[in-house]
Amino acid sequence: MATLLIEPVAKLIEAFNRLPGIGPKTAQRLTYHILRAPDAEARALASALVAVREEVVFCERCFNISDAPLCPICRDGARDQARMCVVEEPLDVLALERTAEFRGVYHVLHGAISPIDGVGPDRLHIAELLRRVDEAADAGSPFTEVILATNPTLEGEATAMYLDERLAGKVGSVTRIARGIPVGGDLEYADEVTLIRALQGRRALGERPR
Amino acid sequence: MATLLIEPVAKLIEAFNRLPGIGPKTAQRLTYHILRAPDAEARALASALVAVREEVVFCERCFNISDAPLCPICRDGARDQARMCVVEEPLDVLALERTAEFRGVYHVLHGAISPIDGVGPDRLHIAELLRRVDEAADAGSPFTEVILATNPTLEGEATAMYLDERLAGKVGSVTRIARGIPVGGDLEYADEVTLIRALQGRRALGERPR
Repeated sequence: MATLLIEPVAKLIEAFNRLPGIGPKTAQRLTYHILRAPDAEARALASALVAVREEVVFCERCFNISDAPLCPICRDGARDQARMCVVEEPLDVLALERTAEFRGVYHVLHGAISPIDGVGPDRLHIAELLRRVDEAADAGSPFTEVILATNPTLEGEATAMYLDERLAGKVGSVTRIARGIPVGGDLEYADEVTLIRALQGRRALGERPR
Repeated sequence: MATLLIEPVAKLIEAFNRLPGIGPKTAQRLTYHILRAPDAEARALASALVAVREEVVFCERCFNISDAPLCPICRDGARDQARMCVVEEPLDVLALERTAEFRGVYHVLHGAISPIDGVGPDRLHIAELLRRVDEAADAGSPFTEVILATNPTLEGEATAMYLDERLAGKVGSVTRIARGIPVGGDLEYADEVTLIRALQGRRALGERPR
């Protein structure tokens, strides 16, 4: 076996295997695909990898991915700069932007509080969030609303509760995204916690979202 | 959205998405992983991609992957050069080598005959296989056995049948790997074709493999 797996192949399998969700079998399959793919495809992947590391930075205000000190959303004068949505990951920004429902700005924490994994508030961009909120208040234009859109997981809920405490009194209102039965879902198969949240979040039929 | 997905990120997502079995969601996740991974990890993947394309070739005799004109197996004097195992992919060579059951040489077809996908015998390394067999016969040392180890799929079986016809009389014997119930498997859940093959391939209990 040692003589069979020639070094560049073994190295590429290893590199693919280090990616999240890519096991050894998939890493092998990807490697053999690259071996036979058109030269342009392998080169495109290699140069995209390098480019992403060299050209992409995190927005110095909201920590979303960016190609400039400020990200496209923070730069956009048409966005409501007084309404902030706090998310765990840049991918969450993408998901929310796809809905075109929110026209404010974001703050990306880059994780959630998780004592088990040793992730305390200091490991996230929470200090920067609080400073941002304070600076807006000092400048006479405090945030009117901060929407806590961390995931409805143990860690996400803990993070939301922590932020709610720290933000109290500093912004117009602190809200949390609704947790309930997903559209197209089935009550019968919903877990108890989700059902409880769905009941707690109930609204009069005519009630409009704020 | 257009302003949000900055170009290097969009390009890397696209490049990952082009890999087999990697959908758009996984491509996004891998891209964001790369953005936050240690610099060495992203660089290792990029350089492994380039190295594999620049340093790895296919063995000019058996078309297995190689770092020299002849692959480690074809170069190995200790292997039985008169016994050949025909497989579809280099990964199949790896799988067979792991068993250490076969000590002959290989021939990698790089696919299987599939009229639906427009893959005829001319798209595979079959002409080279036949030439290899003829040259060995001309040199006075014909292959004693050619084991057809293509997959037990429609395409693999068609390829095996085609090769069996073309090789008849040119080599000592042409054999096909056994198809049957996998070890640890359950008759109850085996499909009919596999059960038929298992019955057809039955042997007396004391019968030794050749």
